[in-house]
Amino acid sequence: MENRRIAEILRSGEPDEFVAVQGWVRTKRELKGFSFLEVNDGSCLASLQVVLNEDLPDYDDILKKLNTGASVEVAGVLVGSLGKGQRIELKTDKIKVFGEADPETYPLQKKRHSFEFLRTIGHLRSRTNSFGAVFRVRNACATAIHQFFQERGFLWVHTPIITANDCEGAGELFSVTSLDLKNVPRTQTQAIDYSKDFFSKPTYLTVSGQLEAEVMAMAFTNVYTFGPTFRAENSNTSRHLAEFWMVEPEMAFCDLKGDMDLAEAFLKHIFKYVLETCQEDMEFFNQRIDNTVLATADNIINNKFERITYTEAVKLLEKADVQFEYPVNWGLDLQSEHERYLCEQLFKKPVIVSNYPAQIKAFYMRLDEDEKTVSAMDILAPKIGEIIGGSQREERLDVLERRIQAQGMKPEDLWWYLDLRRFGTVPHAGFGLGFERLVQFMTGMGNIRDVIPFPRTPESAEF
Amino acid sequence: MENRRIAEILRSGEPDEFVAVQGWVRTKRELKGFSFLEVNDGSCLASLQVVLNEDLPDYDDILKKLNTGASVEVAGVLVGSLGKGQRIELKTDKIKVFGEADPETYPLQKKRHSFEFLRTIGHLRSRTNSFGAVFRVRNACATAIHQFFQERGFLWVHTPIITANDCEGAGELFSVTSLDLKNVPRTQTQAIDYSKDFFSKPTYLTVSGQLEAEVMAMAFTNVYTFGPTFRAENSNTSRHLAEFWMVEPEMAFCDLKGDMDLAEAFLKHIFKYVLETCQEDMEFFNQRIDNTVLATADNIINNKFERITYTEAVKLLEKADVQFEYPVNWGLDLQSEHERYLCEQLFKKPVIVSNYPAQIKAFYMRLDEDEKTVSAMDILAPKIGEIIGGSQREERLDVLERRIQAQGMKPEDLWWYLDLRRFGTVPHAGFGLGFERLVQFMTGMGNIRDVIPFPRTPESAEF
Repeated sequence: MENRRIAEILRSGEPDEFVAVQGWVRTKRELKGFSFLEVNDGSCLASLQVVLNEDLPDYDDILKKLNTGASVEVAGVLVGSLGKGQRIELKTDKIKVFGEADPETYPLQKKRHSFEFLRTIGHLRSRTNSFGAVFRVRNACATAIHQFFQERGFLWVHTPIITANDCEGAGELFSVTSLDLKNVPRTQTQAIDYSKDFFSKPTYLTVSGQLEAEVMAMAFTNVYTFGPTFRAENSNTSRHLAEFWMVEPEMAFCDLKGDMDLAEAFLKHIFKYVLETCQEDMEFFNQRIDNTVLATADNIINNKFERITYTEAVKLLEKADVQFEYPVNWGLDLQSEHERYLCEQLFKKPVIVSNYPAQIKAFYMRLDEDEKTVSAMDILAPKIGEIIGGSQREERLDVLERRIQAQGMKPEDLWWYLDLRRFGTVPHAGFGLGFERLVQFMTGMGNIRDVIPFPRTPESAEF
Repeated sequence: MENRRIAEILRSGEPDEFVAVQGWVRTKRELKGFSFLEVNDGSCLASLQVVLNEDLPDYDDILKKLNTGASVEVAGVLVGSLGKGQRIELKTDKIKVFGEADPETYPLQKKRHSFEFLRTIGHLRSRTNSFGAVFRVRNACATAIHQFFQERGFLWVHTPIITANDCEGAGELFSVTSLDLKNVPRTQTQAIDYSKDFFSKPTYLTVSGQLEAEVMAMAFTNVYTFGPTFRAENSNTSRHLAEFWMVEPEMAFCDLKGDMDLAEAFLKHIFKYVLETCQEDMEFFNQRIDNTVLATADNIINNKFERITYTEAVKLLEKADVQFEYPVNWGLDLQSEHERYLCEQLFKKPVIVSNYPAQIKAFYMRLDEDEKTVSAMDILAPKIGEIIGGSQREERLDVLERRIQAQGMKPEDLWWYLDLRRFGTVPHAGFGLGFERLVQFMTGMGNIRDVIPFPRTPESAEF
């Protein structure tokens, strides 16, 4: 008799098969002459119903140990279930308890717990229905991402986490150091003596792998990163993490249109994959967390995304019969209220806004012919706002140098990045997807801290 | 006419098809009346041979621009090749140069460059045959890893990079801080005022995701991590990186034997996958880098790994007709000369050594019945030594607390880790694979800095 996962048994187990399963007790119901256990092994949302007959040896003793959270191995025969809610159940004649869970001290009892409380027990919360579903969907999103790119011949490239570049200008940086903070060594002029630090210079945690991904795209044409990135921004909101995962494809010989086409196909692929592989979990989210998630997924998969320029967007917003908190004006960045109006009220589907004013965008974005806008694009999605941001990159050496200087940076600090334009430069483009934002969007979870196993936020680096 | 990748054209392009390709010029040969270009797009080792006839408009002008490193789009018809070394070539009637590469300044000329030199131009080295092959094989290894685990129902879990745990005892730690190093704030007692730091406590870069992976395995049964880990160890060797990627599966309801079985199947799967998908690159390594890599892959795939205990290993080493630099003695850790003797000379295949003395192994490894050894295992591979290290974890609360104290640590610092033993504890096991060591092993590359795109080592955090 082979140990089997519960997901597989619930899907394809047949009456009269002998099976053994291992997992954790979710609930116990004692009835006259027998008891029901719900046993869950994390392979799916549903638990396997296990029937214990009182003629089991040591029935009373074992039953006392079988509280919520106890770990067990149960063996027996599958039988069709008479009860509602399951096709099949396990009639056990052999049960082994590995570890008990004292109902007086085990924090996860049958009742519902708030997500705030569950965050304080991050080492146990994955044993609940909600977090089980979140992390299965998270895994499915990640798998869909790799599958999408690998099928298209993209290489997964690992860009550095520790970097000496402090010029990407995307928010505040965490320092990385091997110096003794109690006693930072000084030079004769009282500057920090970085010659004593591990890398002999100031280093930081990366905010983006894009510049290095461009290096790799200039050799392999199509690449993507998928790794952790960091912001030391003191934002205590439901949408910010200090440590989060980001996906950044980069394509040589690609323009803004190709970038938008790929990003749209990419989002559609992920949603389709998750709906197909995590149907039960997605129905759970729709029922318990946010009753629009299935409709939103459907909206993404089945609509062609609207494409408008920033200039058109500003005109539409000026005409809108809505009182915005922040006035709209060509040259200002769109606020989340504007983004939501466009995709939720006006178009009622994802909208790609492109060609933003140059002065509000990063130095590496390609300057358009009018010299006023850059070939940038953001994908705005109903309910979450910006989910993807990308651009065609500036491939002309002289324009890029000019833009770097205009933003107060030194071209020589980016000599290697400029070399990509000196030697065999090509039109290229890419985008970035915040992975946790995607999972939040997919599941409807209200707080981004609840879609990553161990969130890092201001004053919190637990577990 | 559709743009196609060169790998696909070389594999399945047919004479008389019209195609367009984009890539970079590797070499140019000018002959009487026509010229050959080798164009590479990174999709495979081989370049596409492109024939330019002198009747092409602006033939002489264009030819001057087509130096090594220039980026081009070429369109034309495929024809069977008369030359040696390729089945098919492209007769172009349309060529566009995106970017030139001045032969006076472009560092990558046709001649061979040393790997040391290429490390100084890490932003260009992927455009060489060797590094192209390395990073394609690296991607294939990563894909094989995800495939292996996903097929078996394991979840990919993202464990934290920034951690407040300093107790794992695996070498020196990098500090992560948002404090101003020039002016570290102090408390009244002159201690560092961590209340001003981002996380309000000392934080570090993780050395392993194992403890957090155990948390996740206690909910999902089978999980794995695949992410960056760090060591601030001042080791300037060809086998050490300060930043490297690690794979750490963790399985609930699994003992040491199950752990060894999985690890062996895992290694075999990766080698098989890479041989199947990167045949041309692997032949290149065998020919140019290390003429044993194909034999080694074959050895891994087709041999059952030898399994011996540490105690047996010590006896075999004591009997060995070899003069070791370090004497062998029960209780001492095996040195690399011992490991190499066992797998290279004695067994001539991978060897799994298990049940090491408790005092030389980490606190979380399960104490054996004799209380002298722990259920740890290392996989030793010919030529590289230890490639995988794993263990069954101590699931007994009292024994684990004892072991933590014996190693001078405080159980209360690991309260959440101990909770896993308080509530529904189960036998469980896992292992760790250093991803760059694997790629080094696979490709035969001599220096680990040459198998990661942007290596981080003492005094070096370039690009």
